[in-house]
Amino acid sequence: MKMDGAKRGPQDRLADFLAGDMAAVNRIIREKMASEHAPRIPEVTAHLIEAGGKRLRPMLVLAAAHICGAPANEDHRKLAATVEFIHTATLLHDDVVDESRQRRGRPTANLLWDNKSSVLVGDYLFARAFQLMVEPGSLRVLDILANASATIAEGEVLQLTAARDLATTEATYLKVVRGKTAALFSAATESGAVIAGAGPEEVRALFTYGDALGIAFQIADDLLDYGGTSSAIGKNTGDDFRERKLTLPVIRAVAKADAPERAFWSRVIEKGDQHEGDLEQALALMARHGAMEAAQNDAFAWAATAREALAALPDHPLREMLADLADYVVSRLN
Amino acid sequence: MKMDGAKRGPQDRLADFLAGDMAAVNRIIREKMASEHAPRIPEVTAHLIEAGGKRLRPMLVLAAAHICGAPANEDHRKLAATVEFIHTATLLHDDVVDESRQRRGRPTANLLWDNKSSVLVGDYLFARAFQLMVEPGSLRVLDILANASATIAEGEVLQLTAARDLATTEATYLKVVRGKTAALFSAATESGAVIAGAGPEEVRALFTYGDALGIAFQIADDLLDYGGTSSAIGKNTGDDFRERKLTLPVIRAVAKADAPERAFWSRVIEKGDQHEGDLEQALALMARHGAMEAAQNDAFAWAATAREALAALPDHPLREMLADLADYVVSRLN
Repeated sequence: MKMDGAKRGPQDRLADFLAGDMAAVNRIIREKMASEHAPRIPEVTAHLIEAGGKRLRPMLVLAAAHICGAPANEDHRKLAATVEFIHTATLLHDDVVDESRQRRGRPTANLLWDNKSSVLVGDYLFARAFQLMVEPGSLRVLDILANASATIAEGEVLQLTAARDLATTEATYLKVVRGKTAALFSAATESGAVIAGAGPEEVRALFTYGDALGIAFQIADDLLDYGGTSSAIGKNTGDDFRERKLTLPVIRAVAKADAPERAFWSRVIEKGDQHEGDLEQALALMARHGAMEAAQNDAFAWAATAREALAALPDHPLREMLADLADYVVSRLN
Repeated sequence: MKMDGAKRGPQDRLADFLAGDMAAVNRIIREKMASEHAPRIPEVTAHLIEAGGKRLRPMLVLAAAHICGAPANEDHRKLAATVEFIHTATLLHDDVVDESRQRRGRPTANLLWDNKSSVLVGDYLFARAFQLMVEPGSLRVLDILANASATIAEGEVLQLTAARDLATTEATYLKVVRGKTAALFSAATESGAVIAGAGPEEVRALFTYGDALGIAFQIADDLLDYGGTSSAIGKNTGDDFRERKLTLPVIRAVAKADAPERAFWSRVIEKGDQHEGDLEQALALMARHGAMEAAQNDAFAWAATAREALAALPDHPLREMLADLADYVVSRLN
């Protein structure tokens, strides 16, 4: 997922509020991405980690811990750095898997160095993440992170095998989305609550918030791929169509397709036989069946779920920012 | 590393002695490599994990625990399965990095499926490994495994950047070898001792054994690449030369090279400008400076270190098998 956009949104207010903590988190990240023996490791890591990512996931960790009443300590910051390492490792591997050439407006590591470096440095960061989290010694947090890592990899494999398959269901789509985005969001907020010593209701609420936020974000991202403007979403409309991905609007349109429409989808998605005008035809079929509106309503419903989950938590300025963040990720759809 | 060969060696006796435990370990492996959602995961994993690997690393875990006096329990077996998962994950990623087409006499997963599947299934197995080890709840074991995973990835990156670099030192070579082979051997034996509740001397002895065994094995493997017969080592003599790898015999010969010899090494290794007769010339230069004998003596010395480390451990039939294993890995050099 990406979180671009020049407007000053709730994540900027989160960044302001958490600036002190995040300076410490960035220090831990820089320290721990070093390698005594292999300078290629910090080179590749720095290229990605210092390329202006929003550090949303570590901020979610810290926000969750703060809201649950724990003053941020070194363990919280290590956990925040750990989550960013896992995120960075998955980005490095994703770019190899997707053969991407650009990320955050810069050439990808696999392009600047090679696939080998991206695979191995990703592995290193993943190992580092677990090293870091052994230090605070919370088995529950380790369990959450290991589970999230498995869900992420599983979701990516599922996306690989579900690609170009018109039989892909909404349930499969949801699993892919959890792997792609929501699993690490929910791991961040849930583990933040756990490390702060929160009670089971708060932990559950923060898990639900992260999960629903991630799903809302990813559905919105997939919708924008068919409808947003290039400047707002940072990639060109129809990329997913050209890559023959089964995202929610397509799944919805396929579900309602008559025989000639099915033949169209089979040709462009399954066989990849795409011509001038096919994207416009796909958009027309989606419009005909209300696929975009239905998917948009889903995104809004997930955002509402995220916002409502916060009701179980104590009043806190960060709680309001998280609520605004849930609205923000789908506000791009209006 | 590979441990091929048709002769019945100490690892077969280990397999006999540990047959009951290993049946349980294999059951755990099969259970845990399943994925509810992504059938590609067990397909890829099974291709590699059921291809007749010797399961040496899980046997090292179990042997260490047995020698330290602990009857094997479910936690030991989970740890053994975890170590095999980490090993399998690294093999999947190695084959992508090395662009390998064969492993254990069969086409590699990256060839049968694709690089994407190998990267992602490797990630999944790595995450699964940590999930599995959170269950027994030993932070010390988790620490050992996370450290080993970091050392493995670091060693692989180092190998990547040291390749084709004539300035590579023996110290760098040793770090690469620890990453490639010794780190997971020593993690297996050390964590096996820890999970069995062994005292610090036994833990240290088993760490040293695994570390030295792995180094001895890898030096022997690298020597055989220049001197063994194809049937004994499973790959053709000179592969490392053609791939321009800086292994110990080359490092030793380069260290003693005069100016014309240095020009030769620079041409064939750094520039990769290799012609008919160059491998023979390389072998002649190694012979001239006693590089093969020196490396062979190193391998024997590491095997002796491994054997001697066992003296700190209680008498046990498995201890004798481990001692024989140390001799066995270098016996191929005679």
